[in-house]
Amino acid sequence: MLTEGTIIALSTAAGQGAIAVLRLSGSKAITSVDRLFKARSGKPLNTQKSHTVHLGDLMDKQSVVDEVLVTLFKGPHSYTGEDVVEISCHGSVFIQEKILRLFLDHGIQAAQPGEFTLRAFVNGKMDLSQAEAVSDLIASENAASHAIALQQMRGGFSDEIKKLREQLLNFASLIELELDFAEEDVAFADREAFIALLKKIESLLKHLLDSFALGNVLKKGVPVAIVGPPNAGKSTLLNALLNEDKAIISAIAGTTRDSIEDEITLDGIAFRFIDTAGIRETEDVVEKIGIQKTFEKLENAAFVFYLIDSTDKAQHQAAVEALAKINTQYPDKPLLVVWNKMDKTKDFTPPNDTHYPSLAISAKEQTSIDALQKHLVDYFQQQNYSDQTVLSNARHYGALNAALGEIIKVQQGIDDHLSSDLLAIDLRQALYHLGEITGEVTNDELLGNIFSKFCIGK
Amino acid sequence: MLTEGTIIALSTAAGQGAIAVLRLSGSKAITSVDRLFKARSGKPLNTQKSHTVHLGDLMDKQSVVDEVLVTLFKGPHSYTGEDVVEISCHGSVFIQEKILRLFLDHGIQAAQPGEFTLRAFVNGKMDLSQAEAVSDLIASENAASHAIALQQMRGGFSDEIKKLREQLLNFASLIELELDFAEEDVAFADREAFIALLKKIESLLKHLLDSFALGNVLKKGVPVAIVGPPNAGKSTLLNALLNEDKAIISAIAGTTRDSIEDEITLDGIAFRFIDTAGIRETEDVVEKIGIQKTFEKLENAAFVFYLIDSTDKAQHQAAVEALAKINTQYPDKPLLVVWNKMDKTKDFTPPNDTHYPSLAISAKEQTSIDALQKHLVDYFQQQNYSDQTVLSNARHYGALNAALGEIIKVQQGIDDHLSSDLLAIDLRQALYHLGEITGEVTNDELLGNIFSKFCIGK
Repeated sequence: MLTEGTIIALSTAAGQGAIAVLRLSGSKAITSVDRLFKARSGKPLNTQKSHTVHLGDLMDKQSVVDEVLVTLFKGPHSYTGEDVVEISCHGSVFIQEKILRLFLDHGIQAAQPGEFTLRAFVNGKMDLSQAEAVSDLIASENAASHAIALQQMRGGFSDEIKKLREQLLNFASLIELELDFAEEDVAFADREAFIALLKKIESLLKHLLDSFALGNVLKKGVPVAIVGPPNAGKSTLLNALLNEDKAIISAIAGTTRDSIEDEITLDGIAFRFIDTAGIRETEDVVEKIGIQKTFEKLENAAFVFYLIDSTDKAQHQAAVEALAKINTQYPDKPLLVVWNKMDKTKDFTPPNDTHYPSLAISAKEQTSIDALQKHLVDYFQQQNYSDQTVLSNARHYGALNAALGEIIKVQQGIDDHLSSDLLAIDLRQALYHLGEITGEVTNDELLGNIFSKFCIGK
Repeated sequence: MLTEGTIIALSTAAGQGAIAVLRLSGSKAITSVDRLFKARSGKPLNTQKSHTVHLGDLMDKQSVVDEVLVTLFKGPHSYTGEDVVEISCHGSVFIQEKILRLFLDHGIQAAQPGEFTLRAFVNGKMDLSQAEAVSDLIASENAASHAIALQQMRGGFSDEIKKLREQLLNFASLIELELDFAEEDVAFADREAFIALLKKIESLLKHLLDSFALGNVLKKGVPVAIVGPPNAGKSTLLNALLNEDKAIISAIAGTTRDSIEDEITLDGIAFRFIDTAGIRETEDVVEKIGIQKTFEKLENAAFVFYLIDSTDKAQHQAAVEALAKINTQYPDKPLLVVWNKMDKTKDFTPPNDTHYPSLAISAKEQTSIDALQKHLVDYFQQQNYSDQTVLSNARHYGALNAALGEIIKVQQGIDDHLSSDLLAIDLRQALYHLGEITGEVTNDELLGNIFSKFCIGK
């Protein structure tokens, strides 16, 4: 992994803006800028204090490239921990490229994706899970993913993992020490305290692993399924939900957001409607999929709308049976029974013959669509994702899961009075997997995988 | 024109980047950020020095919006001359919008296009022509337009205009004074010095007006015409020129540039091929346009390639006649006679029977295309656009042209021994038009026109 040399990249979004910022990091950051920068004050940057801004001209030999503002961050008090210089220039693409080329011609390297953050990690400015959160934060498109990423970046669960791992490491070394005195059958490690620690770790890991389902769907958009018999009005409901959102999206001057088809954001949470192509195709033709197909959709959904045509008695009876089967197979799946076409049956009262809450709407007339949205949002907001630690990273999930497996093995080993050398093996594995989260245990391939997904300039 | 209140806008390019910068300007810039910003140092911004950077959290009530760097510029030592605060945040669109909304909710106004630069003008940080150059600089897409805009932004000709206008103003007041003593027939204004000044101004204005043709084409892309008889190979030459450029354009990581169809950039100068649709359409059908149509193209071209099929004797003779006519009608039009299809006539020597330089090429085999490009580039580089003052703004051209008219009238008036009161009228008009350039004379409509073309955030 290359973290040598001084690097440069455009840090602001690509394209033309009022200003653009290029960032340099490394031991030659300050001297290389000094060589090309003529400060209005006449003083070289290396005589200036950290965290100060300087106006001047960036020069290519005798000609001015641009009037720029240069900001100085002296290591270790910088993002990367190294000397960092930010150059704020006029935002034409031509100027951005010209400045980039100028420094490349003067021996500065073009930064690799995520290289600034990689250096921050290598220099101990943040742990690995915090570094990963920086990328998540930049990619965050709604309040929920933003809140989860921000919490992770600010320490989140990794601080706690780190502390518990340290305690576990302490026990591990005592147990390794016992191996040296194997013949004397001593126990340096206080077994009771050890068991208590293992329990504590197990509980934390389980809690974090449980939160992954929520964290993952909030990060990627909550998958919502609209199911129900043919002609219940599924496509009309989908359109009512999507169209309303499109009307709500308001452009803020100077910023644009790509809207994703079949996705809506409600109170900061992104909801993604799954298999909408299926809904749209099958609405007008006789739907041939049976209960099995519906079950496949449910499998992937974090929330389900079960739509019934309230004017159709046959649908009603069939729905009661289908919902009972769903309840057996997916007892924990959050589901709302939606009685549709209320415009046609003014005096209809939804029967209370299922295990699920229900709501009466008219998708066509857009009646009670807001109540339906509120039900959806409330369900996820009750989970308090913004106040508690929520796992949203699949890599972390994998490592924590592996760590949990080893912790359980160690506990069983103690119960089974396994010898210290056998305990020590499982312990080392647990420490390894916990260390993977925060980057205390790492390797170039892992780092390469993580940082190659970053954007350039971060 | 609204320059009251405190404004905010996204200053970096729209979209996702590693970082984004939002800028505030106005009397409440510092206090409003202080209200929402929790500095890591614990010290409020208003106790900090200008041109310093501070790490901390931007808060929306109790929750963290983002970890940001805040840079402080205290007026008048800022871009706008007012207090300015820049907030450098993580570059997700969600965060950019959230921060923007946060400040709008706290009574800060969304900046209008160009409002930061308008305030810089109003507060005397730059004159009007410099302000206009900022917009040109941000829009610059090649070295030539960049060099012209940068020179204009750094004072360019407006300093000289301002000085001469001041001297002229001095004479004008002396002449106005003479009016008060009209019955006594005194002349406070030294007529000889006055005439010398008028001559100096006339010479400068003529020089600047002459440079506009060059400045304008360099800014907008030099219009190049490819003309010649049917089947001379015009479309093949066009494709050879355009394709080569496309191969040269290399992407620098993180930046993209929209390439304009039928435009190439050679040594930093953009060349735009005019009426290329015509070329492409008519190549394979019998070309019906006569010499008159060719003349229309020439009218708009800053450079002309006259293409002749070197294997076609009839074309040769017709070309000699056509070129003689062109030379009569457009004696100053730069033109290169291009003998094409050299691949078919290995031992052909271009005849030297026109007023124009010539070059033998093969568009099909791409032979000597580089020599042809060099001829084109050399012609414009010999004009030294980057070392001298070049006018590129149509508004300036109009004002300088009007001023020149008045200056000439004043000179004639002196020759004709016109009375001071009549001279004074023309003088006032000349002062008015000169003042329009730098903004010493201005009005809301003019400012509105100029700044509404800026991007938001500048």
